[in-house]
Amino acid sequence: MTKTRADGVTNFDAWKHSYAARAENLSVSEVRALFAVVSRPEVVSLAGGMPDVAALDTELIEKAFASLMSNRKDLALQYGGGQGDLRLREQIQEIMALEGIHSSVEDITITTGSQHGLELVSDLFLDKGDVVLVEAPSYVGAVGIFRHKEAHIAHVYTDEHGISPQALAETADRLIAEGKRIKLLYLVPNFANPSGVTLTADRRLEVLEICKQRGILIVEDNPYGQLYFGEKPPNAMRSLDEQNVVYLGSFSKILSPGLRVGYVLAPPAIREKLVLANESAILSPASFAQMLVSEYLSIADWQKQIGTFRDLYQTKRDAALQAVEQFLPKVHTTRPDGGFFLWLTLPEGLNSKEMLPLAVTELVAYTPGTAFFGDGRGADNIRICFSHPTADNVRVGIERLSRVLNQQIDLLETFGKRD
Amino acid sequence: MTKTRADGVTNFDAWKHSYAARAENLSVSEVRALFAVVSRPEVVSLAGGMPDVAALDTELIEKAFASLMSNRKDLALQYGGGQGDLRLREQIQEIMALEGIHSSVEDITITTGSQHGLELVSDLFLDKGDVVLVEAPSYVGAVGIFRHKEAHIAHVYTDEHGISPQALAETADRLIAEGKRIKLLYLVPNFANPSGVTLTADRRLEVLEICKQRGILIVEDNPYGQLYFGEKPPNAMRSLDEQNVVYLGSFSKILSPGLRVGYVLAPPAIREKLVLANESAILSPASFAQMLVSEYLSIADWQKQIGTFRDLYQTKRDAALQAVEQFLPKVHTTRPDGGFFLWLTLPEGLNSKEMLPLAVTELVAYTPGTAFFGDGRGADNIRICFSHPTADNVRVGIERLSRVLNQQIDLLETFGKRD
Repeated sequence: MTKTRADGVTNFDAWKHSYAARAENLSVSEVRALFAVVSRPEVVSLAGGMPDVAALDTELIEKAFASLMSNRKDLALQYGGGQGDLRLREQIQEIMALEGIHSSVEDITITTGSQHGLELVSDLFLDKGDVVLVEAPSYVGAVGIFRHKEAHIAHVYTDEHGISPQALAETADRLIAEGKRIKLLYLVPNFANPSGVTLTADRRLEVLEICKQRGILIVEDNPYGQLYFGEKPPNAMRSLDEQNVVYLGSFSKILSPGLRVGYVLAPPAIREKLVLANESAILSPASFAQMLVSEYLSIADWQKQIGTFRDLYQTKRDAALQAVEQFLPKVHTTRPDGGFFLWLTLPEGLNSKEMLPLAVTELVAYTPGTAFFGDGRGADNIRICFSHPTADNVRVGIERLSRVLNQQIDLLETFGKRD
Repeated sequence: MTKTRADGVTNFDAWKHSYAARAENLSVSEVRALFAVVSRPEVVSLAGGMPDVAALDTELIEKAFASLMSNRKDLALQYGGGQGDLRLREQIQEIMALEGIHSSVEDITITTGSQHGLELVSDLFLDKGDVVLVEAPSYVGAVGIFRHKEAHIAHVYTDEHGISPQALAETADRLIAEGKRIKLLYLVPNFANPSGVTLTADRRLEVLEICKQRGILIVEDNPYGQLYFGEKPPNAMRSLDEQNVVYLGSFSKILSPGLRVGYVLAPPAIREKLVLANESAILSPASFAQMLVSEYLSIADWQKQIGTFRDLYQTKRDAALQAVEQFLPKVHTTRPDGGFFLWLTLPEGLNSKEMLPLAVTELVAYTPGTAFFGDGRGADNIRICFSHPTADNVRVGIERLSRVLNQQIDLLETFGKRD
């Protein structure tokens, strides 16, 4: 029987025979599927990955809007160029300089969030069967894009110092020997999503050298770089090599994800193609959002705002680590120096995906580790996002999670691992 | 010699070997390439395709922003769902009802302008070599997307009453007999870009039947439908068939293209995939822009604003037709009942693409007809966009154009057709 529309689903598709091959690879992201649950106010969501936008100074956004309407109204409401607003690109140069990057304003392309930057770069490079090397675990939104492009995703061993150069070289050489074409290495070097780990300065140099020798383009995704809690992380990889790195940046974590403004810094020949791809996909990035960001950067002390976010997220990170220590003594966690995430490793034999409904019954949500692998791994991992709930709720959420987890651990210790 | 960066180009590409096959199909759109020229204030641009956003009531946009900041600030600044804001989707139902469309709010997906809607739909359906049927001429941005997907673009004979049903059936049957897979018919039934023609009610029924019989999905793109000057155009094709039509709508022409808010109404199974594709590409459509549009629709008399646009564009259309009659007596023009465009047909033997530099010297820009064909046709056509300049400047622009055109026509008549 065909389900009614009220169910929000249908099981009949008159066009089933007509889809492109790549459409087969679209699947519901485990993170996205949580959104309905997460929006219930009684649930503490440690899933998401959302910034705490309530910490923004609303008055500054209102001033930015007023300034925009006074100075650039007709431009803001109109189509713009496919590369994005020149003035904003100049301001982005200043932001990237904080990561040690010196760039030409010509080589920056503004995108609909850095997600669309990654989509466009992936579309430019990935034929079916091409290999993308990624961290283990890797960002779920990137894994989704690469899968949609029918690429082969190869996870490279990653520890608390980031991706392993030795494992990277070995994996690359093995795949090359198998006749595979490795097109990209995608990584989040600072406070990675989901692991929270940061790639050391020494390893950055080694990774650059390994990829350069093998003709592998590096895609460096850096949404969290400015959100450090202690020392600044090492300079961006792009600051060391402008020929072999495509750099992705975003305003989603230092201002607002609801504006969807990100950017790509790419070598000139790639950037030329990227602008054409951007125009083909959306004609031009939203003038209004770009110019609102630009006005905000002009009138606001945006570095102070980033400082506010740093302090806020550090407090929440501390609450998260303390709660894990107190309530989850048998669970291992990474100890991130910035960003949004803890990566938990459960005792062997537990399945984080299967436990999620139990957790939701206890009014807490998280993201199962399986979301961050393209190969089925991650069942004994959990990503905890501490950025959005209050510090108190981070603690409450982890305590709720512990009721489920510790009970499962007890069962496991009493009855042994299930088949 | 490698050109300097100051030239804005480079002729060296270290990654030339690495691009995906589809990247070969990205090319500079003839329309887009004009942007640099068009932005010089002394040039009257009849190119573009831009709405006259100066005719918007700024105060209403300011009120919409104030209301947004009071009521939904944190939601507007945050990530949203991949399908788009529910409240805006409800409002879109009302807008589509003006075209005779009755729909479920579940089947609407909000996109980054309707361009991205078309990109996502094309990506869902088009494998390399698949056929897309289009009008002759067709929208340049659609032709660009289909080319990027490595599709085969087949133009179907189109006259002043829109696409010809007979030619459509013949073209489809010929291609099917050749073993081609025809996936989509893409068309702009109301005041088409670039031809300005409107598909008659009778032909809408015939086109629907022809496509249904042959399993061809119709993509109905309707950015201009509300911008009629006299009688309302016939109801949308989607109003007659909800299973075989994907409908694209946009706020770019009734509000602002700088916000990049469009939408897709699709049958449930297609819509489910579309939401996944949207999430993969951009995570979620911009909450801020969506909610600003929603507030605007709530507080403004938006139908009155559309009425203002209608009157304004009608005046400009009249100016354009009168100027063509007066200054270009040997040139044929379509006589659109709405929208933004005239489609000129020059005496045989003239080349509108080659003449463009001469026109720019006379301080007028237009779009050569070749931009609107995937097969090299259109050299004897010109698209005139009358929507953006003042009515006086539309007249000035066409007079300037006539200096170049009439001189070329005289030369042709004196010396005959060049080889």
